[in-house]
Amino acid sequence: MMTESPRPALDVALAYHQAWTSHDLDKAMTYIADDVVCDAPAGRLDGAAAYREFMGPFVQILTGSKLIAAFGDHETALVMYDTETMPVKSAPGAECVTVKDGKITYSLFVFDRAPFDAARNRAVESG
Amino acid sequence: MMTESPRPALDVALAYHQAWTSHDLDKAMTYIADDVVCDAPAGRLDGAAAYREFMGPFVQILTGSKLIAAFGDHETALVMYDTETMPVKSAPGAECVTVKDGKITYSLFVFDRAPFDAARNRAVESG
Repeated sequence: MMTESPRPALDVALAYHQAWTSHDLDKAMTYIADDVVCDAPAGRLDGAAAYREFMGPFVQILTGSKLIAAFGDHETALVMYDTETMPVKSAPGAECVTVKDGKITYSLFVFDRAPFDAARNRAVESG
Repeated sequence: MMTESPRPALDVALAYHQAWTSHDLDKAMTYIADDVVCDAPAGRLDGAAAYREFMGPFVQILTGSKLIAAFGDHETALVMYDTETMPVKSAPGAECVTVKDGKITYSLFVFDRAPFDAARNRAVESG
């Protein structure tokens, strides 16, 4: 008999986090519902394909990460982490996810786009 | 005899949140340690005076807020919320705070500066 976790949403959020910070986007996507809705800084993403298109380029420039805090309960989890990426040395982010049947169905994603915009502008100016 | 809260850091984070989202910066500052360190998107803030200078202008443009999720334990709390401000209609933020003796001693503050930068640029262009 399986023992149910007291915090299934946190378990899923952490497994998802562990996967994408290990550059395993395929595994990360197994925790994302097909009809996921994600409110990201640039706007709303609808569905797993759009979500993957959003995460893919980020995972490619990711050079390191550190989990700062993670809490959750039956349906909701809240995770904060720092990331190190090629253009930006410290880019902390936070995600609040809703989990149903082992998959993330909604995500509110917060991070600061300003340093990424600045890095892009520098690249354009120097390129 | 007082009953100790099982999540004193969460209690402080929520009381602080309630105060500043009610535009009561004086009360909010009673939950901030004199030697607070805050890592905000624009860089590190050292001490309560710098922290207040950072929060003051934001509280002045705040027109609404909604708590999205809040979790915590003995020493750490993680809070996510949405804010409505005069220049930016939806500006979600997240804070991970360390609490000691009833005061926030460290805060990692995440929000997207990009829409605020864009609003400022529009104001400059139209002004």
